[in-house]
Order: sequence, then structure tokens, then C-alpha cells
Amino acid sequence: MSAAVLCIGTELTRGELVNSNATWLAERLTALGFELREVATVPDSKPVIEQTLRRLGSNCQIVVCTGGLGPTTDDLTTACAARVLSVPLERDEASLQQIRARFTATGRPMAASNAKQADFPRGARILPNDLGTAPGFEARIGDARVFFLPGVPREMEAMFTTHVVGAVEDLVSEHLYQVRLRTFGLPESAVNDRLTGIERDAGVVIGYRAHFPEIEVKVLARGGDAAEAERQARDAARTVRQRLGEEVVFAEGEVPFAATIGEALTAKGRRLALAESCTGGLVGKLLTDLPGASRYFVGSAVVYSNAAKQRILGVPAELLEQYGAVSAEVARAMADGALNLYGADIGLALTGIAGPDGGTTDKPVGLVHLAIAVGGGTLSREVRFPGSRERVRVLAAYAGLALVRKVLARGTIDGVG
Amino acid sequence: MSAAVLCIGTELTRGELVNSNATWLAERLTALGFELREVATVPDSKPVIEQTLRRLGSNCQIVVCTGGLGPTTDDLTTACAARVLSVPLERDEASLQQIRARFTATGRPMAASNAKQADFPRGARILPNDLGTAPGFEARIGDARVFFLPGVPREMEAMFTTHVVGAVEDLVSEHLYQVRLRTFGLPESAVNDRLTGIERDAGVVIGYRAHFPEIEVKVLARGGDAAEAERQARDAARTVRQRLGEEVVFAEGEVPFAATIGEALTAKGRRLALAESCTGGLVGKLLTDLPGASRYFVGSAVVYSNAAKQRILGVPAELLEQYGAVSAEVARAMADGALNLYGADIGLALTGIAGPDGGTTDKPVGLVHLAIAVGGGTLSREVRFPGSRERVRVLAAYAGLALVRKVLARGTIDGVG
Repeated sequence: MSAAVLCIGTELTRGELVNSNATWLAERLTALGFELREVATVPDSKPVIEQTLRRLGSNCQIVVCTGGLGPTTDDLTTACAARVLSVPLERDEASLQQIRARFTATGRPMAASNAKQADFPRGARILPNDLGTAPGFEARIGDARVFFLPGVPREMEAMFTTHVVGAVEDLVSEHLYQVRLRTFGLPESAVNDRLTGIERDAGVVIGYRAHFPEIEVKVLARGGDAAEAERQARDAARTVRQRLGEEVVFAEGEVPFAATIGEALTAKGRRLALAESCTGGLVGKLLTDLPGASRYFVGSAVVYSNAAKQRILGVPAELLEQYGAVSAEVARAMADGALNLYGADIGLALTGIAGPDGGTTDKPVGLVHLAIAVGGGTLSREVRFPGSRERVRVLAAYAGLALVRKVLARGTIDGVG
Repeated sequence: MSAAVLCIGTELTRGELVNSNATWLAERLTALGFELREVATVPDSKPVIEQTLRRLGSNCQIVVCTGGLGPTTDDLTTACAARVLSVPLERDEASLQQIRARFTATGRPMAASNAKQADFPRGARILPNDLGTAPGFEARIGDARVFFLPGVPREMEAMFTTHVVGAVEDLVSEHLYQVRLRTFGLPESAVNDRLTGIERDAGVVIGYRAHFPEIEVKVLARGGDAAEAERQARDAARTVRQRLGEEVVFAEGEVPFAATIGEALTAKGRRLALAESCTGGLVGKLLTDLPGASRYFVGSAVVYSNAAKQRILGVPAELLEQYGAVSAEVARAMADGALNLYGADIGLALTGIAGPDGGTTDKPVGLVHLAIAVGGGTLSREVRFPGSRERVRVLAAYAGLALVRKVLARGTIDGVG
């Protein structure tokens, strides 16, 4: 089955934005068994949009079109679709109610221009949008079923999953099953090296996707029936897990890294407190991205100055003077301080040099000291990370959480570090 | 002048790789003054490549084509170009020598298949590649000058700069100038409504780009000379700023929102401390994304439980009991507590219900109380945000920082809130 993706937006044809929707849709349609004939990206231009819709409609069975459904004057997709279909636009009262309700619920006034988002080509199947104000629609153009979705990635992704997958998956005869494993702690080349030979031995395709700082390993099997494809993919995924180890493969599917730490803390009935210097709140942010974090996370003392480290966490002035703020000794004192301040069961501290400035020969940019305190003692670990300030901070946060996970798995701080 | 980009490679239409070449070329061609009619991405398929070359050749003046010049059997671009041009392939001995010399210099044996990279459509202008084995070429297809470049980004970028820029820049008679304004605080539709008429009155094009929670407003002017285009864009941008107000338009260009708060704090010589509940460290993370934040940011007390609010920030138990953790009274006590704990000049507190659970009729998901403490007193503000947990948290963080910015701009907390 031949498919195409059409992305509409002058911000894309001007190169102001990386077209992540195109990559995402191409990957999903491929995984569903479609062959993409084309990924077209066009500007907010009526003649170009209309010509492209006609062309793709006559060449493909499935077209997924994103963007241009917003309320502003440069959002042209719906009007272009109606012209290509030679039908008028009609306002859908139910959609208008929903858009209005969305604004009412949030206490914002609805602008006049938003009403336009309830207009659809006559006869189109309306696709509700649970996450935003722009509903999508489906229409037949030429030989193709064309799905019009908004350009905002999270809305587009949710609507693809809800409205498109079910509508098109029966068109494909081959069965695919994909297992996605999330890993942290090894570079892509090392992951690749450790998995050499599995593709050949297990008859699967293994793909890698860097999603900093994680590497996703995708194991794809194809089979005549669904059960066979699933069995094959699962068997190969088991081999992948064995080769990489459970510390590296932390989850399957969409589970965030922080969620696995939350699960481990919940399972052991422990509550975590943080002392963050170089990460500035990032670790707390990652833990509280997830609802229900208050079950295992009590708080974080972000201490961005030496004075705050002393005053709030009780780090002795002598330690700061003798070893400096970025040292194993201060990290341990910070972890202990957070444990006591919050009355938690485990304290995690992070102190480092995120850069780009502030590095010295002894303590270069990228140096981070991690420490963990439990009732009975502390452990520390020195790590060095490459790259930008952002990358150093994210790697430090992940490494800190990984250390908590390891201590929880072992049940002790002895021998970890 | 109308231009197009054509990227060839099944790895792109399968979504295995982000198409960074497309974004890079689109940006460069736009900066040179071209309007991109299309960015097409097609698989390694002879009929699709040939049809696409014919189509773009008849619609555009300039086409930049990347990929498919390698030595393997799925590299089809050169053969397809020859067929479209109805000319045979001819081996270029000078190019063959260069390819051979490249292998010799690096001590690798040259595979037989590499000789294919010295074949070009008869009459094509050969474009040497100083960084790799695949030379490019230029040919006229239909009305277009078509430049064929390799797909490896660094080779493609160097060859674009060396061979394409000089060849095409004289074709552009028009000059473009763009001003990009960053806004926060109004939904896209409201921004659009307030700017109605500027396009027509000022002879510019206004575009919008949602970059949650910010909306970027792009003002594009075209003129016969560069100075005229710039003047026109700057005049229109001034009108945009007036219509939206300086509280909404927080910066021009690439400046992060948190940086404007940092600048305002630095300008007034004030240091900020935070008390974060629902944001869990996100506000501290945003402030410390930027190097040098220690000049104006001392730390954040992330207090994710009532006990921590009492114990660390000294929030009175009676306030928590009487008003609840999500209340103006508790927010004020938290802000005051952070101010005192860190010895800062300004304290910002955020407490709210990020969801998806935990909402009640009185205190629904999305309700956030913000408070600011300065030496002389406190102010609070109640806000309600729509959307997911992630969106509520990001909106709360931005609203808190915006409140700090407002207080700094006024120089007092009186009348703010």
C-alpha cells in the first residue's frame, strides 16, 4: 500500500523548524506496513497546497496531512481541501460547541477567529481533537483516504493514534510486531556492537533511535499472522535484554526513566529527598513530571550558592573550603543534609560543573559528584560527561537517578559507587 | 524566485533518520531570498525520483537535490537524472582520478563500485567534493537549474556553500528582512486578532509559530534593497510591540524567557529564591538552564508535602489546615519562607494542582496560586490553566516568572497581582 505524508507550513519550507512530524509519521506508517511514496512539505500557499493534494490523491491510497488547521489567516488547509473536493465549507455546530467549551473550561475568551476551526468541507468525517482547539477531518481525494490533522506534534500524534491507525491498519496484509526497549548508560555504538548477530539469528530488524540521553532499541518482526510476529519479536527482545543487562534496559514502551525510579521507591516503601546544585531543580522536575510523585518524593533543596549549601543543608564551611563545592565530600554532606532536612529515607545529591564556564584543569566542565545518603551512611560517585551545559545537566540527572535505582535494587549502599 | 529541495533516500521516507538536510537547505535558500515552493522527500525508487525531477524542473527556477550519489545499488540519482535529460551517462576521467587518489591517501582499497561515482549525465557541470568520494553535478531540467549534492550533511553543506551559493545569488532581485518577536501570555488567536490589519497597512507578512507556551510572531518585509526591507520590517515590528504590549512581547530573536528575568534581576541587583510545590523544581531548572544564573538565583526549596512546607519554609500548620496547601495564604507564607531561608531579595512561590488527579469542585486541576515576597510584604495571584499536567506546570512556571518580571519593572509589589 502506498502512502504519503504532506506537511503544510511556511515555517517548515523556510527551515525555521525541524519537521519532526514528518519523521514521526514516516516511522509510524512504515511500522504499520505502508511504503511511503513521498513526504511533501509545502508553504502556506493556496495553489501549492491544492496542486499537492490533487497529486498525492491520485498517486496514493493513504495521505496524512498535518498543519494549517489553526485559527489564523495563514491557516489555509481546510479551505484548500474544500476547493479540491469542489464542495463548500460548512460549520459544524457540535465542533463549535466543543471549541467554545474548551475556552469556557479554562476561563479564556474565545476569539472570533477560532470559530473558523469548526468549518469543514461538506461530507468530511470530523476527527475530534481532545488536546486542542483544532479538530481534524478525513475526506476522499482521488483514490486516497486523506487524513487532515493539526500541526502541533502532541495533538497530531494523539489523533493519529486515535483516528488514523484503526482506520488504515486493515488495509495492510502483512503483520508486524514491534518491541521498543528503552536504554540508558551505553553509547549507541556500544549498544549496536553488543547486539551484533541478533537480526540474522532471530529473523528480525533492529533499529536504533537516539533520544538523548536515552537510546531506544526497536525490535521489529514481520509474519503471516499476528501471534507469530509477536512471538518472534518478543524472543529477540529477550536476547537484547540479556545482552545489554537490566541496568541498561530500564523499560519497554513509553515508560519515562523517572517512573522506574518511582516504582522502585514505591516497591520498597522509601521516600526520596534531593540536594541539587548543578542540576538546579531538573531532577525534582523529572520526578514530578509524573502524577502521584508525592508517594515517594518529598522535595529538593536547590542550593545554588555555597552560603545556601551551608545554611540550608548544614554543609560544614570547612568542607567547602578544603575540597570545594564540587567534591565527593561536599556531595556526601549535601545528601546527608537533604535526608535530615526532609526526614526522608534516601537522599541524593548532585554537585558539578555544568559549564560552559567555571572549569579548571583539576575540575573540568562536565565533572559531577553524586552522593547517596541512607540512614546508615553515604556513598559517592565521580562522573565526567561530555557536551553542552544542557547535556551535562541531563546526564547528571539521569546518572543520579540511576544510582538511586541501583541502591534500591541491591538493598544496600555497600559495594555500589 | 521559486526554489525546491529534493531529498532522496528510503531511510528518510521510513523515518529512520531526521531529515536535517531539508531544514538546513530550506533555511539557507530562504536567507538567499528564494521562496521554497516545496521540500520533497522520496525513496530510492527510479519512477518516483524521475517523476519528481520532471515536476520540480517545470515548477521551479532552482532545485537542490541531495542523496543517492553513493556507490551502492540503491544509489539511483545520477541514472535517473540522465534518463530525465535523455542523455547517456559518461565517465569523467578527472573525477575517477580524484576518487582513486582519495582512497590512496587514506590507505583504503577502492571498491569497483566506487567507479560509478565518476559517471555523470552527458553535458552536466561537475561539482567537485573536497570532503568525500561523491562529486555532485549541475544540469538544467525544464526551467530549473538543478544541483545534485551528496546526502552526507557535512559534504552537502560544504558543496552548497562552494558551488551553489555563488551560482544562484545573482538570480534573486528581492531582499528580505525578518524580525522575530517572542511573546507569552496571550493565546495565538488573540495575538492574531490584535494584529489584524498590520499586514495590509505596513506591506509585510506576519507569521505565527506556537512554541508552547510561547507564540513567536514573525514580521517579514521584502524590498528592492536591504535597507528598505529592514526599515519596513522594523516599523511593522514596532507596531506589533505596541499592539501587544511589552509584558507580552518579552524579547526579539533567540532569547529564552528565563533570560529576560535574569536580566531584569541583574539590572536591579536583586537575587531570587523560589518555593516550588506543583512545579517540583521546574522553575529552578528553567533559571539554571542559562550559564551565570548564580548571579541572580540563589536556590529553590522544592516542598512536595505539607510537612516539608512547615518544616523547611515555616508555613504555619494552621494556614495549611484552614486554607489548604493550594491557597493564596499558603503561597504567601511559602514565598516569605523562601525569602528568609535563602536570604534573598525576592521570593517566588508556586502551589497548585497540576493534575490529572487531585482536583475538586472548589479547587480544580489547573488552579495555581502564585505569590511574591519582598522585604516589605507579599502579593499573590490566582491563575487557572487548561491542559495536561505538563502544560499546567509549564504555564505556572512561566506565569510565576512573568510576575517577577512585572514586579521588577514596576519597582514595587503595589498594584501588581
